[in-house]
Amino acid sequence: MTIVTLGELHAHLGGHLRGDANIALTSVASLERAGPDQLGFLTSAKYLPQARASHAGALIVPEALAETLPQPCLAVANPHVAFARAAALLHDDAAVRGEGIHAAAMVAEDAFIGLDVHVDAGAVIGPGAVIGARSRIGALAVIGAGARIGEDCLLHAHSTVQHGCIVGDRVVLHPGSVIGADGFGLAWDGDHWVKVPQVGRVVIGNDVEVGANTTIDRGALDDTIIEDGVKLDNLIQIAHNCRIGRHTAIAGCTGIAGSTRIGAYCQIGGAAMIVGHIEICDRVIVSGGSLVAKDIREPGTYTSVLPLMPHRDWLRNAAHVRHLDHLAQRIRHLESFAKNASQPIEPAEK
Amino acid sequence: MTIVTLGELHAHLGGHLRGDANIALTSVASLERAGPDQLGFLTSAKYLPQARASHAGALIVPEALAETLPQPCLAVANPHVAFARAAALLHDDAAVRGEGIHAAAMVAEDAFIGLDVHVDAGAVIGPGAVIGARSRIGALAVIGAGARIGEDCLLHAHSTVQHGCIVGDRVVLHPGSVIGADGFGLAWDGDHWVKVPQVGRVVIGNDVEVGANTTIDRGALDDTIIEDGVKLDNLIQIAHNCRIGRHTAIAGCTGIAGSTRIGAYCQIGGAAMIVGHIEICDRVIVSGGSLVAKDIREPGTYTSVLPLMPHRDWLRNAAHVRHLDHLAQRIRHLESFAKNASQPIEPAEK
Amino acid sequence: MTIVTLGELHAHLGGHLRGDANIALTSVASLERAGPDQLGFLTSAKYLPQARASHAGALIVPEALAETLPQPCLAVANPHVAFARAAALLHDDAAVRGEGIHAAAMVAEDAFIGLDVHVDAGAVIGPGAVIGARSRIGALAVIGAGARIGEDCLLHAHSTVQHGCIVGDRVVLHPGSVIGADGFGLAWDGDHWVKVPQVGRVVIGNDVEVGANTTIDRGALDDTIIEDGVKLDNLIQIAHNCRIGRHTAIAGCTGIAGSTRIGAYCQIGGAAMIVGHIEICDRVIVSGGSLVAKDIREPGTYTSVLPLMPHRDWLRNAAHVRHLDHLAQRIRHLESFAKNASQPIEPAEK
Repeated sequence: MTIVTLGELHAHLGGHLRGDANIALTSVASLERAGPDQLGFLTSAKYLPQARASHAGALIVPEALAETLPQPCLAVANPHVAFARAAALLHDDAAVRGEGIHAAAMVAEDAFIGLDVHVDAGAVIGPGAVIGARSRIGALAVIGAGARIGEDCLLHAHSTVQHGCIVGDRVVLHPGSVIGADGFGLAWDGDHWVKVPQVGRVVIGNDVEVGANTTIDRGALDDTIIEDGVKLDNLIQIAHNCRIGRHTAIAGCTGIAGSTRIGAYCQIGGAAMIVGHIEICDRVIVSGGSLVAKDIREPGTYTSVLPLMPHRDWLRNAAHVRHLDHLAQRIRHLESFAKNASQPIEPAEK
Repeated sequence: MTIVTLGELHAHLGGHLRGDANIALTSVASLERAGPDQLGFLTSAKYLPQARASHAGALIVPEALAETLPQPCLAVANPHVAFARAAALLHDDAAVRGEGIHAAAMVAEDAFIGLDVHVDAGAVIGPGAVIGARSRIGALAVIGAGARIGEDCLLHAHSTVQHGCIVGDRVVLHPGSVIGADGFGLAWDGDHWVKVPQVGRVVIGNDVEVGANTTIDRGALDDTIIEDGVKLDNLIQIAHNCRIGRHTAIAGCTGIAGSTRIGAYCQIGGAAMIVGHIEICDRVIVSGGSLVAKDIREPGTYTSVLPLMPHRDWLRNAAHVRHLDHLAQRIRHLESFAKNASQPIEPAEK
Repeated sequence: MTIVTLGELHAHLGGHLRGDANIALTSVASLERAGPDQLGFLTSAKYLPQARASHAGALIVPEALAETLPQPCLAVANPHVAFARAAALLHDDAAVRGEGIHAAAMVAEDAFIGLDVHVDAGAVIGPGAVIGARSRIGALAVIGAGARIGEDCLLHAHSTVQHGCIVGDRVVLHPGSVIGADGFGLAWDGDHWVKVPQVGRVVIGNDVEVGANTTIDRGALDDTIIEDGVKLDNLIQIAHNCRIGRHTAIAGCTGIAGSTRIGAYCQIGGAAMIVGHIEICDRVIVSGGSLVAKDIREPGTYTSVLPLMPHRDWLRNAAHVRHLDHLAQRIRHLESFAKNASQPIEPAEK
């Protein structure tokens, strides 16, 4: 158990301390559940009632709210970030623990294992693979031949990095993630598909996180590239030769087809579908469930979802979608009638 | 091979037996393929022609139909349920077989393994983990440090339960399922994302089934909760801090974003997408492929999908969706023209 | 490293050779990155500028373009297929390498392992399983009891074939793919679900490829069938009792619900959703992101997606979808007004 005082948090995170600096904290918790040795946080005045009622030993709060709360507080400009840092201090990641190479790990003789690396039970590290210093390789993870993992990485149980792929520093791969499976490359030969060998790699930058069961395919000829700071949720598919720009975050269940390039600082909502061979510029937000079928050249928020309806209403409305063109024709018809009628009318044309 | 007579089935399942109680049955089969030692079933009169032609040794049938069939029959109120029970009697689950702890399993010294537990080849059980009596842990499954698995569970090959998560009794986890990976918690720090440590757990009730490659993320601070009797199909994503109510069934490829609460007895169709921080009440049915972006407060069926069209028709119709607002304006325009015209008209306003 | 001359490629692939047959090639590359010992290709005149500027040692080109390029060329009828074959010649699949059964593989005593099979570290092969000649089983792959794998297959790391399933020859299973998990079979028993045992199998034909983390469920009673030459991308869900016709290709993130039959030579776009118990005929193309809710009986292309809009426009337009029926009523109203007005009009009825 780690114990940190509020004063130590202050020294680590900056901000303005109000109250007892010697309060000892052992973990973080939600306002509702926190006890006297736990740290809570709030990001806006909306949560003041819960904060006031909270049994938390101390709180991280926005600068404007410190004075209004009974608990010892650390007031900072960005409480969410400060809380994340405090939580990282208090909570070791317990998912992959241990030291050195587990007796039941299977490490190829010519693999290069850096200083202070931990390889957990049953992990398989192929010939010529390189694992950077202080990286932790979870139980039953697989690192293929010649793959290179940077420093301070955390590869969870059952993650896979196929042969020759490159992973930067401080990268987290969650369970079941697959880096570098073959892209879906097929050539049609009259009456059947011929597999096109996928000889590119996946190259992942620094500070990237890849969610559980997310797949990133290797390039067909060139590489699939995930830039620094990209965050990928669970069950995402990134096809061959995509490039995802730095600090872009993509929510779960999203699919991105081949050779598409997404810019930096984008946010792609869950279950979005992005077709292949297009380009999305920097700072685009795609709403969850939307399908992107063309380039997006202007930053902004984009959406393509149908609103939910009670099924009965949907039955009445949805049929008309199939006849919108006809509906529009009928309106044009009525407009020309109106135009010709005694009382003139100027319908707006678009 | 298990052999059960129709009389024994009758004793086990109740209902009304008609015909030879001594018929010996060894397995279940479809009406089309069943042979004389196999049990078939039908749920409605719709399947009477196939039932009459079937070579099945015996049939489970609805009460009203027993008299009309030539085979020995067990007539019951709910043939689907009775058939499921009969099949469970005749068919051992062959996926994870064996006794005791396989020599090639990797079990931490201080893990607690209950009575009659089977741990298959290559499974990894972490320090402090608890496995309840009679549970079977498949090949290469991973149970993290301090995780607790209840009694009579079946964890298939390659399933993962991360550290500290709780699984109830009689739970089935299919291959590749990941329980307790980190939620997608990020705080924006001006020019990059900061990971928010995910210190909650996943807590799964009794009689839950989790499909292949489905992922359930651990809570950020509090827990992600899957209540008793929930059934999850394959490739579903359940984000951190969700709560899924008891006996709710969710079909494959569905994504549920963070902190959403789904009630009891719901049925969520395949490939549905449910946004975060909303609440869906009990007994809601969401049609496959629908996106739920707001609370649902009334039981019922809800839908938001576009009907399929030949691509040519789609090209003509879909463009209008982008101009529906303009179309509606033009109709209002025409209505005010009509209102002012000699022949009065009262268009319905909504 | 494999070295192949252009002359040898000519002998292997046919076509018309122009230039130095002795050029030695060691690998394939994109036009932009190829060096003098690498083979490039182009499929149409669109890429002539990149081809002319390429440093590739030789090119595979369409018959009409050989004369126009400075590099030694192999001109063929189908450059994509010829290039795929050349790449397969030059590039060994490096994902699963080795010979014989790795010391750390766990092979049941009564499993049958064919000639020249390679089983990699940590793979688990269950009792009674059969592995055909020359197949390669990757690290930590699981083959269940009694499953049969054909000849020349490549099962990547972490792939799973559950008990009793059948896999043909030359099949590729990518990491994390799960063949033969239980279908989502449930019977409602008044206040809870009863699991319906899934006693069918998955039967996969020859030359099938299954993408990373894709799941194919075993049949409830009869089998789930994937015919010869089917190609499945990543994160696809195929439910119990589906049948996918020969040489059909399905892109990533697609879900196919139970008992649906898809014909031969179909192409299903990414993130499509296909409901259960329907039939799609041969040679159907479904656009990415579309939902198929009914039988498709005519070959052709089908679509059901909403076009993407800037979110502001979407807010204005989407609301009307919920009132299309009312909009259509208002148009009918206006038409009857127009009909009755002095100036007659004949609105097109549909």
